Amino acid sequence: MESGVLLVDSALRLWNTTLDRASKHFGGLSEEQLRQPIAPGKNRPIYLWGHLTAVSDALLPLLGIGDRLHPELDAIYLSNPDGPAAENLSGKEMQRIWDEVNARLSAGFAKFTAEDWVARHTAVSAEDFAREPHRNRFTILLGRTNHMSYHLGQAALVKRGS
Amino acid sequence: MESGVLLVDSALRLWNTTLDRASKHFGGLSEEQLRQPIAPGKNRPIYLWGHLTAVSDALLPLLGIGDRLHPELDAIYLSNPDGPAAENLSGKEMQRIWDEVNARLSAGFAKFTAEDWVARHTAVSAEDFAREPHRNRFTILLGRTNHMSYHLGQAALVKRGS
Repeated sequence: MESGVLLVDSALRLWNTTLDRASKHFGGLSEEQLRQPIAPGKNRPIYLWGHLTAVSDALLPLLGIGDRLHPELDAIYLSNPDGPAAENLSGKEMQRIWDEVNARLSAGFAKFTAEDWVARHTAVSAEDFAREPHRNRFTILLGRTNHMSYHLGQAALVKRGS
Repeated sequence: MESGVLLVDSALRLWNTTLDRASKHFGGLSEEQLRQPIAPGKNRPIYLWGHLTAVSDALLPLLGIGDRLHPELDAIYLSNPDGPAAENLSGKEMQRIWDEVNARLSAGFAKFTAEDWVARHTAVSAEDFAREPHRNRFTILLGRTNHMSYHLGQAALVKRGS
């Protein structure tokens, strides 16, 4: 098999594994646990979940998959720190939006060839991209997988069933 | 440029960025902060740092770069949970070992071509690899980058200078 195909396959597997772990963890927390800070004075899992959902939703236009589905999340989970607004959404609602965004992303990911992955994302100009070819879709995918793990490590401090 | 080269470049950039962030964070914590739990009853940064160092050290033979430099870390930071033994090493000593292991890894990474990255790692047999070609070096690299982010997200709960 061509190395490009295998390299992309590794990255998509890791995205899916990380996503599964995040879905199980956040989806397995009770509404009360979702509102229990991960450490005194730190973010609550509901905020981290919303933050990851907003960041993933923003991937749709960034990777050229389609329009955003839930731009309304940004004011609560991106532009502002954790606070009362993060409770506007229940865990159940967040789960629905999370699943919706991720299904849309997966469908988009499935269509990209290795050449599509190393093509520029929509936030870099053709001119800048010529000088900085690493500003491609693949770099974004890897970075966002890492970002999900970063916050999943934090959210994991609130144990399911505890 | 060939897509395989660009895909590998993205992954190595992310490894380096994540490593830099981890080095700055752990290296910027005082000896006291390294021993301050990230949340009540949870791991201390010195333990997470040792854990990441041990896991990175184990990458040397796993990726076929060379022998382990510090197998003595495993008993403290892999086989056992956080405890008094984690204090056997000062932050200064951990920094030295961390830098040593990472320099060796970087030198090894630099020699791999895209084809080397999609070749099997040393913990999978040729027979299993024929059936499961994703069990390659690249999958390990991405997974370990993600693992570093996971624990860095946790360690970041102890702020430098706080």
